[in-house]
Amino acid sequence: MRDILPADKARRESLLAIIRERYRAHGFDEIETPAVEDYARLHAGIGGDNEKLSYNILRRGLDAEAIESIGRAIGQAADNMAQLSDLGLRYDLTVPLARFYASNRGQLPTVFRAIQIGPVWRAERPQKGRYRQFMQCDIDIMGDDSARAEAELMVASLDALAALGLDGATVRVNDRRVLDWMLDTFGFTADERPGVLITIDKLDKIGPDGIVAELRERGATASAVDAFDAYLRRPQTMEHRPYGEGQIRKALPENAPDEIVAHLVGIGEAVAAGTEAADIPLVFDPFLVRGMGYYTGTIFELAHPSVSYSLGGGGRYDGMIGRFLGQQIPAVGFSLGFERLADLLEPVADAGSRAIVLVHDADVPLAELIAHKSALMAHGRVRLERRAKNFKALLERSATDGYNAFATVSAGAEPGTLELKPLS
Amino acid sequence: MRDILPADKARRESLLAIIRERYRAHGFDEIETPAVEDYARLHAGIGGDNEKLSYNILRRGLDAEAIESIGRAIGQAADNMAQLSDLGLRYDLTVPLARFYASNRGQLPTVFRAIQIGPVWRAERPQKGRYRQFMQCDIDIMGDDSARAEAELMVASLDALAALGLDGATVRVNDRRVLDWMLDTFGFTADERPGVLITIDKLDKIGPDGIVAELRERGATASAVDAFDAYLRRPQTMEHRPYGEGQIRKALPENAPDEIVAHLVGIGEAVAAGTEAADIPLVFDPFLVRGMGYYTGTIFELAHPSVSYSLGGGGRYDGMIGRFLGQQIPAVGFSLGFERLADLLEPVADAGSRAIVLVHDADVPLAELIAHKSALMAHGRVRLERRAKNFKALLERSATDGYNAFATVSAGAEPGTLELKPLS
Repeated sequence: MRDILPADKARRESLLAIIRERYRAHGFDEIETPAVEDYARLHAGIGGDNEKLSYNILRRGLDAEAIESIGRAIGQAADNMAQLSDLGLRYDLTVPLARFYASNRGQLPTVFRAIQIGPVWRAERPQKGRYRQFMQCDIDIMGDDSARAEAELMVASLDALAALGLDGATVRVNDRRVLDWMLDTFGFTADERPGVLITIDKLDKIGPDGIVAELRERGATASAVDAFDAYLRRPQTMEHRPYGEGQIRKALPENAPDEIVAHLVGIGEAVAAGTEAADIPLVFDPFLVRGMGYYTGTIFELAHPSVSYSLGGGGRYDGMIGRFLGQQIPAVGFSLGFERLADLLEPVADAGSRAIVLVHDADVPLAELIAHKSALMAHGRVRLERRAKNFKALLERSATDGYNAFATVSAGAEPGTLELKPLS
Repeated sequence: MRDILPADKARRESLLAIIRERYRAHGFDEIETPAVEDYARLHAGIGGDNEKLSYNILRRGLDAEAIESIGRAIGQAADNMAQLSDLGLRYDLTVPLARFYASNRGQLPTVFRAIQIGPVWRAERPQKGRYRQFMQCDIDIMGDDSARAEAELMVASLDALAALGLDGATVRVNDRRVLDWMLDTFGFTADERPGVLITIDKLDKIGPDGIVAELRERGATASAVDAFDAYLRRPQTMEHRPYGEGQIRKALPENAPDEIVAHLVGIGEAVAAGTEAADIPLVFDPFLVRGMGYYTGTIFELAHPSVSYSLGGGGRYDGMIGRFLGQQIPAVGFSLGFERLADLLEPVADAGSRAIVLVHDADVPLAELIAHKSALMAHGRVRLERRAKNFKALLERSATDGYNAFATVSAGAEPGTLELKPLS
């Protein structure tokens, strides 16, 4: 975990303000859930690998005897930490959202478009650029099973990215049902499917040969691996544009299910209508997998030509809310990779806003000083600094802190008469 | 802990944006610390009663055997939870700030003015209006031992409150050193002091007679209680205005220390210079105590005529940073009672910003619909709603959600031609 210092915090808040404003413009409403959820909910099997990374909160009021006997009980009852821990820190915003929707459904519109911006925690091994507390920035639509939902998420996210200065992003799209159907078609068994998907997910890293070799090593059905191998080597596999029915059908084995293809085509038409891009900013990628087990339909990732990694992603998870509500509610979500964006983006120029350092002699009476500060605040934000021996260093450090003007004041000056000078 | 629904979240975010903007204008810079701090730091004895309310996070990777033996070890070594827990959730923003300052001092200006806005957690008993996760909203100045620091905090906070629509607030002021000196003067021993302060803190609730009775019951030095009793019954005790040396000296026993009185008077002059109030918006209250043990000098609370409770408060805690840094750094902080403000304040009118519900027939093709939405977004934020049987109810619910205009669309309409109607 890390401290966030002033310059970085200001930059992050300005990026979040832009994202929040754009998502609100597209009809999404921000909500907030507690950082802490029930232990049982966080370990219900829907959080995937993140469940193992969760920070568990110790029950209050345990004494030595209780702890000792819990230790004995856990020894007998496998690894049941729930006796020591009743709460935990959320590791994502999706599980809490499903709980939120189930808890508050009566007060929400039929189709609910949520914005969630907040920290999540994962007890990962420390490594460069990865933090154990980090911001997530999600939008989700609950209660709409049509392609409209995917299209609204994508149009809003592409718009937010453009507002952040990242024009020209594209969305890589696939559908879990497409993957399932493809693997069936090749002849993989249903039992083999999860393992095969994990392998396919490495395509970008290990290439088609690596995939086929790994599948053979895993001992997957040999004829299915052969069929997959042949399909991977088809020349048209890499034709990604333009997005539409023709390209989608060409990228897939023959006779892809009409309903799923129509859903994917519909998303493209709607995204085209909602963006000003000359081409539909989508790319169908039949090998996009996405890690989380809870996806049930469309899956997608945000790509930008300036970076090799994804800037966000999401998908449809129609089964999850039913786990909490006992009634199936379609849902689809998109998570912006805020930490990556914050690393990538230059400071947002705070154009036209003035930040003034008021440098004062040590003998300026306090009341005079505060009166000067108040008068200057008509022109911008004002920080007081006592004159230092090294005046130049003081000004340089103020410029680093984001200040762009300064004034000096000695005892006895009239408020409102100070001269503002630019700071570069 | 609680969920925050869209209307409430929008209101809270708009209040926070105002507070943040005002504090920044006064030269404060926002920082962020992790929600999680080391167990040892959170239990170092500076968090007062809040330490007992802290949520402790379970060490990762404990097995049954380890837990059992920890239980035995705790049994022998008093109540040492640190063996089970290495981290905890912060219960305030002050302890983390002191740690932040010690960790990052080289990158901060000599006088550092911090804004911190974020959640804290306390395992309190559930009761109406109290939450276990709540927002704190603090400003602090480190590195300035002059009255300038108190004055800047107060001027900025009164300004923020005025920007929120709460003009006419006042700050009740006292100084821990005044309290200590007074109790010495009456003849209480140093050992009696903490207990006497706890009793004095109840003055508003139990009145002077209750105070004296409780002190006698506690068995405090009888002559000291008599002296205090006589002082409490002096007629001039309740003269609170105008703030200044005359009133401060009249409110105290004779021969109050000049240095402390000058510090208090200086704050008043500076606050007068920094606000447009006709009278100095301060009230000297020699019986203001403030609970936290870490205060070392000025203490203050924000009061507003519309409410009987305090809307925030703070004080000087010159000793705390030295605990982490090994070098004394003067510090003074002010915490706005954000949850109370959020309960108190009416929704901030989002004047001039339009929010549009676009009601569409079920058969409008998806791409047409998204094109209409995009075109309408030139006028404001847009939410899509499928036409419901009860059209009136749909419009009413949209108005409740903050929408103030609507349009309807059928299949085949041209984007940009929809008529906007007001929603009331």
